[in-house]
This record gives sequence, structure tokens and C-alpha cells, in this order.
Amino acid sequence: MEKAALYHRPESEYAYLYDKDTMHIRLRTKRNDISNVKLISGDPYLIHETKWYNHSENMQIIAQTEDYDYWFIEKIADFKRLQYAFELTDNKERVFYGDRGLFEMTEQARMKAENYFRLPYFHDIDRVKTPEWVKKTVWYQIFPERFDNGDTTNDPDNVLKWGSKNPDRDDFFGGDLQGVINRLDHLADLGINGIYFCPIFKASSNHKYDTIDYFEIDPQFGTKELFKELVEKAHEKGIKIMLDAVFNHTGYYSKEWLDVVENGEKSKYKDWFHINRYPVEFGKNGNFEGATTIAYDTFAFTPRMPKLNTANPEVREYLLKIAKYWIEKFDIDAWRLDVANEVDHHFWKAFYHETTSLKEDFYILGEIWHSSQSWLNGDEFHAVMNYAYTETIINYFVKKDISSTKLASGLYEQLMLYRNQTNQVMFNCLDSHDTTRLLTLCNGDKDLAKMTLAFTFLQQGSPCIYYGTEYAMEGENDPDCRRCMVWEEDKQDKEFYEFIKELIQLRHNEQHIISYGSLDFNLLDNDKNIVGFKRVLDNQELIAIFNNSLTENIDLDNKENVVFSQNIVLDSEKVIIKPKGFVLYKKCYR
Amino acid sequence: MEKAALYHRPESEYAYLYDKDTMHIRLRTKRNDISNVKLISGDPYLIHETKWYNHSENMQIIAQTEDYDYWFIEKIADFKRLQYAFELTDNKERVFYGDRGLFEMTEQARMKAENYFRLPYFHDIDRVKTPEWVKKTVWYQIFPERFDNGDTTNDPDNVLKWGSKNPDRDDFFGGDLQGVINRLDHLADLGINGIYFCPIFKASSNHKYDTIDYFEIDPQFGTKELFKELVEKAHEKGIKIMLDAVFNHTGYYSKEWLDVVENGEKSKYKDWFHINRYPVEFGKNGNFEGATTIAYDTFAFTPRMPKLNTANPEVREYLLKIAKYWIEKFDIDAWRLDVANEVDHHFWKAFYHETTSLKEDFYILGEIWHSSQSWLNGDEFHAVMNYAYTETIINYFVKKDISSTKLASGLYEQLMLYRNQTNQVMFNCLDSHDTTRLLTLCNGDKDLAKMTLAFTFLQQGSPCIYYGTEYAMEGENDPDCRRCMVWEEDKQDKEFYEFIKELIQLRHNEQHIISYGSLDFNLLDNDKNIVGFKRVLDNQELIAIFNNSLTENIDLDNKENVVFSQNIVLDSEKVIIKPKGFVLYKKCYR
Repeated sequence: MEKAALYHRPESEYAYLYDKDTMHIRLRTKRNDISNVKLISGDPYLIHETKWYNHSENMQIIAQTEDYDYWFIEKIADFKRLQYAFELTDNKERVFYGDRGLFEMTEQARMKAENYFRLPYFHDIDRVKTPEWVKKTVWYQIFPERFDNGDTTNDPDNVLKWGSKNPDRDDFFGGDLQGVINRLDHLADLGINGIYFCPIFKASSNHKYDTIDYFEIDPQFGTKELFKELVEKAHEKGIKIMLDAVFNHTGYYSKEWLDVVENGEKSKYKDWFHINRYPVEFGKNGNFEGATTIAYDTFAFTPRMPKLNTANPEVREYLLKIAKYWIEKFDIDAWRLDVANEVDHHFWKAFYHETTSLKEDFYILGEIWHSSQSWLNGDEFHAVMNYAYTETIINYFVKKDISSTKLASGLYEQLMLYRNQTNQVMFNCLDSHDTTRLLTLCNGDKDLAKMTLAFTFLQQGSPCIYYGTEYAMEGENDPDCRRCMVWEEDKQDKEFYEFIKELIQLRHNEQHIISYGSLDFNLLDNDKNIVGFKRVLDNQELIAIFNNSLTENIDLDNKENVVFSQNIVLDSEKVIIKPKGFVLYKKCYR
Repeated sequence: MEKAALYHRPESEYAYLYDKDTMHIRLRTKRNDISNVKLISGDPYLIHETKWYNHSENMQIIAQTEDYDYWFIEKIADFKRLQYAFELTDNKERVFYGDRGLFEMTEQARMKAENYFRLPYFHDIDRVKTPEWVKKTVWYQIFPERFDNGDTTNDPDNVLKWGSKNPDRDDFFGGDLQGVINRLDHLADLGINGIYFCPIFKASSNHKYDTIDYFEIDPQFGTKELFKELVEKAHEKGIKIMLDAVFNHTGYYSKEWLDVVENGEKSKYKDWFHINRYPVEFGKNGNFEGATTIAYDTFAFTPRMPKLNTANPEVREYLLKIAKYWIEKFDIDAWRLDVANEVDHHFWKAFYHETTSLKEDFYILGEIWHSSQSWLNGDEFHAVMNYAYTETIINYFVKKDISSTKLASGLYEQLMLYRNQTNQVMFNCLDSHDTTRLLTLCNGDKDLAKMTLAFTFLQQGSPCIYYGTEYAMEGENDPDCRRCMVWEEDKQDKEFYEFIKELIQLRHNEQHIISYGSLDFNLLDNDKNIVGFKRVLDNQELIAIFNNSLTENIDLDNKENVVFSQNIVLDSEKVIIKPKGFVLYKKCYR
């Protein structure tokens, strides 16, 4: 037995309250090392009275990665308290694993209360709670300057003709909120039910991540009245609204930073930032774009984005006021938090408290590209932008640089980082304003893009479509991924649109089993480059098979119960999945 | 290489801010499996500019357990941001380990930003901070009913003659606060500089864990004026005061619970508790002592201790008011929190905020007997009662049921559960009002008890003496461990007193190196039952050797620099440590 590979940690993703009465318990062991894991558990204060330590229950493997098996069991407890340990069996020995480490499986070891892990009391207030509606949401990300120009009267002076060129870094094309309102029917027809807006507050750049005033809609985008109308009309269509909060840093031209530029150490805002020396004026004192000799802390090395000191109570109150303002006055449903990992945890805890107090089912999404356990313990974010998850999908389907086994391993590894209720609301996007577009990654191969999207839509979490994906738009990394939306009908790929629409509908139809069902990668063929998985919930079964090979067909006996597919041939005997094809079966048992 | 044994977790005890500018990074690997670990690190936004991924620094093993090596490095970062990964080498291969798992050590793997772990920004507000004074404190635990009767006018009706018998569960002997004031000179002479009081608030029992009124001193113990005098006089002598907060449950005879007993569902306090059905009166409806059919949640199965609903804002405000009251009005220095693990985290976070806002260096100590990472992240407790640590010491020295290697392994395992600044303020007691007394565990063997105490005093954390230990008092588990303090001189062991006094002085003298120095168990002889360790700090070295054998002597060449010892013989050539002996060397280098 590889004892050194064991891992468990109480009150983490390894042991947590899932619903009011149910604990989830996980254990990590080395892959294929242990034949059987059982849980020994009971009330801490009844150990000697009832001798519950003489009983145990089987745990199940719920995830298998290249290196590990993850074992799982659900527990309820009569008195809301649980003491537990693991009984591990391999072909040589049987071992007791608990809070004080490993012991031989003797009665002496089992009857000692201190040898057990503890879930001291099930407090619902400490439970990680995630909003129900997010599980049911298919997002649509809008980069407002490029979605549609619905009102030419608010265009910037230097506006370019819509779609007249691929965008450079500082181009303006006049996209605005009226453009979004005009296209709500398009979005409703597509079937999405959540819009994630890149920043809409007053700022200098076209991307608006360099805020000037968090309390104003950028005048190039419209007015507050117009935004209110947008939210109301979206809500009428069942579409939720998520805004982008850029709280890590502000813009160079915010009044607070300009005051520091002008007044230096005498500025009343000097403690709003992290300033190492004066003066802080752009172009002076090492403060050049990309300079590492910068006199103040910034986002990356961008002097135009001075970092806010969120530990300063004044700053905290100011930003929290903003966070609440757009909920209270405009009824937004979610905040996406830019560069969320570089802001302090104290601030996010206050942010969580204030926003969810205003709106109980408010959704908080952090931009974090790496493992994010510290932010997902129920008092900061509900989810993060799940790049680490979707990156694995892209590596497998698009880049083809990992095997089927590695795909399953990578996805399971990410799922095992978080509690199940967190996985249910993760934000799964394959591309965004910060990345190359999916279809471009696919070298324009639409079938490949569709297969990749279909696989993603069948995963836990809420999937997101980047604007224009429905018309098969392309674009290299930023700024090229921010091209003007294609509204001329003759340039739109209508067939791709229909696929996306069907896929969104499928996702809505199957959301329940995708959110709550089990996940078993029961077909992993590295030679043929095939992946298949099964989800089970109650009396339902969802079976998906994807053919990621370039040349080989897959033959399947089962012709019944196909609910979605691509590149398949049905003959009288079987289903043939051609390359870049997939099939999805749905079965119900009595 | 045993890849499955690797463990690292950003923003935990594996990667944390130690002081304002310094990160501590740890990595767990299988014991003796990996010959070399290096850290590859740099600023996230300079990875391509400076190619820092081509450089690495050696990490050191700081702890070795039976199963694991723990590697360590300190890092500062020019721009307060750090991206890092590990380079692992064994005799066969060299591997890259980071946020996305394991890779071959190729340039391609090293240059991908997403492959690295992240410490996104060093926020001092998120740093775990622990009070400096606690590192310098030797505690003395007082069970007030049994320390001294300084005022017979407040004795309970049924008071027994002081020390007339060994205590039964419901006996009263008249100990009080005046008794403590009278004995402050005794405590100052002993050298302790912190008193931990078991509860002193109005309650029914002799132990006072069944609170009636948290705003009143128990009348059998004295008055508020007297307590104020006690704190002032203690402070004059440099002695800190810690009180016991019993916030998990209240007493049956509290006005809030009695109101529920009387008015049932109509009581305005019904949501202060966790009530499953009515009536709740003692002796009715399954509410019998130890009954598992109890109609409301309690501490353990004790109907006399109804559990408080700390998630109820009214209860939270009430308890926080109490927490602040005794700090504001009486200037106490610390709270010890009874059954701390069964109270919700939200409450403790508010508790931490409120108490440390009032008094910056306030100390919060939780009663938790199991692994406690969830409470020690800088916003709940500073430390816990370190039973898991001292239990290992007792198992080795007193019970002799583990080997020298297991001793070191067990201690290292506990140290690696927490950040270093936490280990520096852990509360290390060998016995308490809840356990058998140390000397009784030792079957009255005083040399054995002394050796065990000496070893404990040389560990990180603040040691605690249970009242009477200085006079070699004995006592079986509760209630026998709560005997009346021996004040008759002819019954006091004066020689033991002198030993304890010297030991406390030694601890004060060597506190700095014990708190901050490294720990290397460089002598672990399982056959001879010997343990030796070395601490190094700057130009100082502390070397300790303990002879835990029953029969064998240890011969040592070095006769110089002995600062403390027991059962040793100095001959012309060498030091001979006899069984139950130990020697401590202190060396300074230029």
C-alpha cells in the first residue's frame, strides 16, 4: 500500500456539507493501489456506548486520474456531528487512517476517539451555497464596443466603419447598449439566458478595463436609463445580467489617481494606492509602459492601471458602494471580478457579504486562471472562470496533444479541487476577449469546433458562448478576437447558428442530469482517440461518445435513444461515428 | 519517483506570507524518495521578458516523518507577486510540478505561465498574525474552585474542608478569586507570566461550564471589583490573564433557557437554541442525562447544557457583547474558547474581528483536540490547545508505546499542519482539568515527569503548567485531577518546585531560539530509546539529549556549555546521562 499517497483534509473539498443534512467525504489514494475503502463513522459522544467503530460502509471511486483514485461517500448524522476514519484494504494489509495518521486495524486503534477525523457539527451557515439559476444558465459574453452599434449619436470621434477592418489595439467601432437591446430577440432565439458584459463603466480605452468612473455608464455606450431598460427587457426574456467589476486597479484618468499625480504625497487619495516613491506622473520616474522600475504598484506593469489598496477601509467602502449600487438601482444578477486573485481576501469576504445580503441568489464569478480553492470556500466567490478545465478540453480535441486518458484525468483532477456544489456553477468558456477564438484555434474546422463545444456543454458548470461564435466568427488573440459582430446576413454561417441553437436547447433539456448526475469516463481509447462518458441520475442515463480521431470510424450497436449527434451514419445495423463526430444517448429506466 | 505522494496547496500552510515581505513555501514528498527539490519562481508578468524559468534555487528538508519529507524555502518578491513550481530530481528523472500537475522538465513546460502555482499578490491584511507576547509566555492553569479559598464569606453552603477529600463530581471546596490574588507572589516567584482561568462566570456547577450569566462573576468566586483588582495586580507583575468562554452552549439555569422551558414555542428565546420538538423540560420528553432521544441539541448528550444557535444574529450579538465586555471593562488579554470546534466559523470570524479590533495583540485560543487548519487561517483563532502534539510526547516519554523515530515523526507531522507563526503560539499543556495529571500518568515517577516537562518546554509554542504541578500534585482523570491545591508546606514537594522554577527560567532565557530556531531531530535511537535535537538560530545552537531508556546510560564527550540537566554525572572525561536524565547544551559562535 502506498501510504504516502493518502490525502484527506476535514472542512475542505475533501469533507464538506453538501446540503443541510448531508456531508460529502472524499479520500485520495494512489491509482489502483487500494482494492477497498470503507468509512468507519459515528457520533463522537457515542463511541463507547454504541461501539460504532465495529461497523463500516463501502466507499466508491468517483474519479480516477493518472495518479490517483478518489473515493467518495455521502453521510447524514443523527445528531449533526460526525467522527470518521477510513479502513483501507489492499492485497497485503488492512489499515486504519484518521486524524492521527495510520494504524494497524486493531480494536485499540478504532476505539480511540482522537484517532478520528471530525466534522464537529453541521452548521448550515458555514455551508458553501451556490445559486440554483446558474446551473441552468447558458451564458453569452458581450464585448460591448464590438457587439452592435445601435446608436450612432454616441459614437466616439474617431469611430471606424463597423467591420471595416480587423481591430487594432486602439480602434473604436461604436458598439453600445442600444445595440444590445436591439439584438435581445436574437439572443432569446439562440436560447441563451445570461449575458456577461465586459466593462461598461466610463473609461478611456475601447475595452474599458481602465475605469474613470464606476458610477457612470461609458457615454460611448449609452446612459443609465438605457442600461436600466436593457436589464428590464433582458429580465422579461428570462436573461440574467452579469457585469464586470474591475476592482484590482483603477484607470489613470480616474479622479482619485489624477489627484495623486497632481498632488503627490499631499493627495488625500495617496493611501488609496500602493505607492513606493514620488512623483507618479506617467512618463516620469520610471513610469513607462511595461517598465519594471515603476514607482507604484500596477496591474502587471501597466502604469495606466494603478493598483487599488483594497485594505484601506475608505477604498473598501467606496468599492462596496459601487458593488451594491448596480444591484440596488439596476437589479443586476451577477458580478464578474477582474484580476480577482490579486485583490485581498478580506475585501472579497466583505464583497460577498454585502452583495448576497442584497440579493440572496446573487452570483459572484472570479477571474482566476489557476487552482482557486482559497476563494471558493463559500464566503468569497461562487465560481471562477474555469480556464484550467476548458484548457484540458482544448488540449484534447483542438490541439490533440493529450490522450483520452489524460483528458479524463485532467478533468477529474479539476473537479476534485472543488466541492460538488461549486462544480455545478463553474463558468466554462472555451474562448473570451482574452484568448484566441475557438474556431481559429481549430484552424477554421467547424466540425471540430462543434464537437468541442458539444463536449463542453455536457460538462458540469454553466457554459458560455463568446459573441459571434453562433455565426462561426474567427479571431486571433487579443485584439483580433474582438472583431465587430457579423450582422450582414450573407456573412453569417446560418448552419453553425442552428447547431449552436440546438446545442443550447439540448443543454437546457439535459441540465438536471448534467448538474447532478455522476460522471464516469467509461470509454477511453488512446490508440483510436475516442472518449466516452456516462452520467447517471436516479432512473436516467446519459451516454456520450466522441470520435476525436482524424481518420477512423467508430461502430456502435445501439441505434436507439439518440438525442443529439454529429457526423454519424445510421445504417440498418448500427451507428457509425465518423471522425469529428459524436453521439449522445439518453435512456430512462422504470 | 513516487509522484502520487506529492502534495502542495497554495495559500495554506504550504504557501503563506510569514512576515510582510517573506513567503514560506513547503512541499511534501515521499520520505527518502527525492534527492533534490528546487524552486523555479518569478514575477508572473515577466516570465517571457526575463526567462526566469531557466533558473532555480535549492529547497531544504525541514521535517522528516515516517512517510514524508517536507521541503522548504523562503522567498521575497520584487513586485509582491510570485509564480512558482518545483523541480524534482531522483536517481532516474527530473520532473516539473506545478498548478497543472506534473510534466517532463522541458523548456516548453517551464515557459507556460499556467503551469505554475501562484501567490498572486502579497497582502499583509491576509497574513496570519500571532501575538508576540504569547511566544514569551509560560501559562499557569487555574481551576478556581480548587486553587485557594481566600474569602470564606462567599463559600457555598455545602462547602467541604479544604483538601479534606479527593473531589467527587459535585463537591465544593470554596476556592475563589481572593485566593488567587493572595497567591500572586507565589506565581510570580515561580516565574509564570500568564494565567488561564477555567470559567469564572455565574454558573451552577463547581466547574462553571454551565453558565447562568456571562456578565456576572460567580458569587462563590467573588465580585467584579475583585476580579478587576486581580487583573490589575497580575498585570503589575507582568502576568497576562486568559478567561474561558463557553459559547457553544449555555447552562440550563440561564434565563434564556429557563424561558424556553417555561414558554416553549412561545418563548422569545426559542431561536437561540436548536430545538427539535417541545416540551424541553428536563426529565421529560426523553430529556434525561445522557439520553440520545433529547428534544434539543446539547453539548454531547447533556441536557443541562443546551447548545446555542450562534447563527442567530441576536445570539451572535449577545455573545460578542460578552466577549468585548470583559476586554473593555477588565482588560483581559486572551479568551480560551470551550468546545470551539462545534461553534460555527461565521461566529468565530466575527469574534476575531471584534476582539482584535479592541486590543490588537489579543490572543484567541480554541479548544480543539484534532487537526485544526480550518480555524487557524488568521481570522478565527491564533492557536489551539495542542493536545495532538503533547499526546505524542506523553506516548513516548510516559507511556513508552512509541519509538524515538515515531516521536519525531509525530511532532513534525503536527508542525507541518500549521504555519510557522501559528506553531510559535500554540498552547502546549501536558495535562488539564480534562485529563489525568502528568505525575499520575507517570505512576508518581517524578524524574520521568520532570523529563517530560523539560522536553515540552523546549518546544515551539507556549507551555502551560496545570496548578499544583509545581508541588508534584497527582490526580486521576476528571474529577480527581481537580483536587484542592496543596498549601500546607509539609505536603509540598519543594524540590519539585525548584525544578519547575528553574525550568520556567530556562524557557524564558532560551525563548528566542525555541520560537524562531530550526528543529532538527539529529539523534533518534530506537534501540536505546534516546532522542536528541538541535535548534539553530543565527550564531546560536541549542542541543538537547534525552535518555528515555529504563536502564542504559548515555556517554557524551562534550562537557562544555551545559545549561540545564537532570540525572547526569560529570566525570573528568565525559557526561553520563542516566535513565530519565537529559542534558541541554547552548553554544554561541562568533
